[in-house]
Amino acid sequence: MNTSNMEMPIADAQLQDSINEEQAKFFLDNGFLVIRHVLVNEELRIVQFEMAKLYDKGVAGVSGDPDYMYGTGVKSGQPILKRVEYVIDKSDPMKALLGHPFILRSVEKLQGPNFIPTWDSMVLKAPDEGVIVPWHRDAAVPDGCEDKRPIFNVDFYLDEADLQTCLWVIPGSSSWSPEASDERCRRPGFSTEDAIPVPMQPGDVIFHNILVLHGSPDGDGNPLRRTVYYEFRPGEIEAGFGPHTLEYLALKQNVLYDCIERRKHTAYAAGEKPFDYKPTGGFAIRQKTTPLQYRYPHETYWRR
Amino acid sequence: MNTSNMEMPIADAQLQDSINEEQAKFFLDNGFLVIRHVLVNEELRIVQFEMAKLYDKGVAGVSGDPDYMYGTGVKSGQPILKRVEYVIDKSDPMKALLGHPFILRSVEKLQGPNFIPTWDSMVLKAPDEGVIVPWHRDAAVPDGCEDKRPIFNVDFYLDEADLQTCLWVIPGSSSWSPEASDERCRRPGFSTEDAIPVPMQPGDVIFHNILVLHGSPDGDGNPLRRTVYYEFRPGEIEAGFGPHTLEYLALKQNVLYDCIERRKHTAYAAGEKPFDYKPTGGFAIRQKTTPLQYRYPHETYWRR
Repeated sequence: MNTSNMEMPIADAQLQDSINEEQAKFFLDNGFLVIRHVLVNEELRIVQFEMAKLYDKGVAGVSGDPDYMYGTGVKSGQPILKRVEYVIDKSDPMKALLGHPFILRSVEKLQGPNFIPTWDSMVLKAPDEGVIVPWHRDAAVPDGCEDKRPIFNVDFYLDEADLQTCLWVIPGSSSWSPEASDERCRRPGFSTEDAIPVPMQPGDVIFHNILVLHGSPDGDGNPLRRTVYYEFRPGEIEAGFGPHTLEYLALKQNVLYDCIERRKHTAYAAGEKPFDYKPTGGFAIRQKTTPLQYRYPHETYWRR
Repeated sequence: MNTSNMEMPIADAQLQDSINEEQAKFFLDNGFLVIRHVLVNEELRIVQFEMAKLYDKGVAGVSGDPDYMYGTGVKSGQPILKRVEYVIDKSDPMKALLGHPFILRSVEKLQGPNFIPTWDSMVLKAPDEGVIVPWHRDAAVPDGCEDKRPIFNVDFYLDEADLQTCLWVIPGSSSWSPEASDERCRRPGFSTEDAIPVPMQPGDVIFHNILVLHGSPDGDGNPLRRTVYYEFRPGEIEAGFGPHTLEYLALKQNVLYDCIERRKHTAYAAGEKPFDYKPTGGFAIRQKTTPLQYRYPHETYWRR
């Protein structure tokens, strides 16, 4: 596949209400889509500031809190903050971000009206510790699931990712068989002949199917990169196959309702048309309840 | 079918922990089962007293409350209280009754560990207004459902039903086709050649499959009869086919947990081994919450 001249539609959240049909089709065919200008101006600054606080806290060292996760720096050999889980629980602007109407209308277009928010995490690439992230898929579709709707992450970039250090994806690999995916991932080095780079500016977003192959090359001398991942799943897939229990669905749907309401009370959303979450059939919520918490630990709600 | 010498196993809640295999098989084959002595002594007196209060309130006349339902007396022509809905919401001993361990262990045996409590109602046969209740099924299994586990009511008798006025059932009719059931229901009069009477004492219980044909003859001069119906459904059937939304499941599971706890604090349950509700897989409840209410209106939670 020659990807150098690939026609890639790019959405712009300041010019559209949601992704359009062409962009939706590109995402479904290729497993990823770039959306520019999702976070702008005050919201971008506030979200950057909030995530800087969590980053600073994590870098200073947090012990005994499993939400702050560390690896070992390949150059320094020191503990390196690599991930912070449940950022919605830790910051009110991150709650408001879950209510982002462009994002939610686009998720609805791709997953249907019964989508459920699942993971919310910040992933960090430490400065000057950049190493190859080998080709990989983030996760698999649950066993037995024949529903073809995509499960995907919404990746909010808070820092620039330039051509030297950015994510690469293999277009269309989201529909490859497990065997084809495994074969590609086993190839040595970080070859990019069938891949394209996805440079990003702060405030831009990638939708990425959990099945799309992605990775990044050695980024010597890279700056800090913070990316927030919000994952969404069609409720029908969650209800039928998990990984969470049925109880989890309504809990997270109530978190979503709450975050949509919270967004309405931010200054930066004043001019927006709010998203109207209207799950249907068995997924309808008849009695919205204020969330008891914003941190429903995944492992607590696994099906066993 | 000659039903006059039918071998009918009868359970006794004072002598068993739950229905046994033979009784379970009889229920699955025939669509009903009699259990003697479920409510005894203090609990029977308290439940009778509580339901007498609701009955008296209803007979005095309640307007504007849809939970008190009236018909027109065929003899008196007057409004006659025929049903009170959501009795668990209206009385604490009825909450404790939902936690009855013999009943719940038996429901679990028949429906599996993920059963859900649905309806809770008191049905009244007014004194001396007894009329033929024609042969009927209470409800149908949801469209598309192939799960063979029974949906059934637990009927708690608070008053005697003697041979003159008691319920009649047609054994095995729970597995008849809709056509066979319709044909039998269309026959004129209240013929009983393929049916058996089920006389009951106060505190006795019938499990009756929603599909079993039942009815009662003209009971001239009948005394008041109060029967409380608690319906249970396998969670898998509710989740897959409704009629309630998925949100309803966890709400009612939390009501069930709460009622099991409440029962432990009653004097009359002091000697009992409490029921241990342990739903599995997608039905597991990880975070028990005190119910916000005990009255979740069915129509609010219908799938649309």
